[in-house]
Amino acid sequence: MSFSMYSASVPVFKQILTSLSSILQKAEAHCTERKIDPAALLQARLYPDMFPMLRQVLIACDFAKGAAARLAGVEVPKYEDNEVSFADLQARIAKTIAFIESVPRADIEESAGRTITLTSGGTTREFVGQAYLVHYALAHFYFHATTAYDLLRHNGVEIGKKDFIGSF
Amino acid sequence: MSFSMYSASVPVFKQILTSLSSILQKAEAHCTERKIDPAALLQARLYPDMFPMLRQVLIACDFAKGAAARLAGVEVPKYEDNEVSFADLQARIAKTIAFIESVPRADIEESAGRTITLTSGGTTREFVGQAYLVHYALAHFYFHATTAYDLLRHNGVEIGKKDFIGSF
Repeated sequence: MSFSMYSASVPVFKQILTSLSSILQKAEAHCTERKIDPAALLQARLYPDMFPMLRQVLIACDFAKGAAARLAGVEVPKYEDNEVSFADLQARIAKTIAFIESVPRADIEESAGRTITLTSGGTTREFVGQAYLVHYALAHFYFHATTAYDLLRHNGVEIGKKDFIGSF
Repeated sequence: MSFSMYSASVPVFKQILTSLSSILQKAEAHCTERKIDPAALLQARLYPDMFPMLRQVLIACDFAKGAAARLAGVEVPKYEDNEVSFADLQARIAKTIAFIESVPRADIEESAGRTITLTSGGTTREFVGQAYLVHYALAHFYFHATTAYDLLRHNGVEIGKKDFIGSF
């Protein structure tokens, strides 16, 4: 039985983005119950030169949409990054999940050997589809999604690893 | 071109464990340079009821060895969890990488449809190999590896995402 590029990408991104959505709901409820300014969590950082929690969620979304689009060979949609509230983050996650689920499954299935070209900071890198997904896109995605979780946990939101892993 | 269960598992675990090893070297050097008690980083937590940094590394190692063994259908080696120092963590990571690289590649390649049975906390769960790897083992592995990174970053060790992603 061979392994499917689609199974290793879209449903995994959806699993963790759905978890992030639930975790952010708990974080928002935590603010409401304790009369905490939502910005205290949205703008929380683990260190002054790290991105705040809100931005960690945006970047996690971007790795999901970027991976699904690049693997399928379709244009990566641009989002404006103008989110400021918990409601905005929920909308961003929902939009991201809707996009990755809209990408034709067959195009991703065939992407293991596709050449993926990434340009970032003036340098261009080429990957084979399979290596791009497992060594690059998923690693970056989990890095930011976990850091968003860690930031909320560090600030006292009552969540646990089960909330992060979610269901699948 | 189909996707390989081996490529999605052992080399990915090795990539991130190798990164963790480098990050821990930087953390140890940080302690030495600043005359910081290594326990300040090894036992650092993001919240009182979260595992400390040292334990996050052990658990990341365990998800790597557990996944490689279970996918291949070989016994999961037991480690004693008696690590207390940076040197111990380096040895644990090295031992884990040596183990996952010793697992026969062909046995992992054939594991996409293998039934994986996990018993934890008195409950038993069954997975198909592919779902076990992408939805469960990698998610837990990245969760703990990223949290170890976040703990060190939060405590001022000069590391960045590049150190976490590493090379592949």
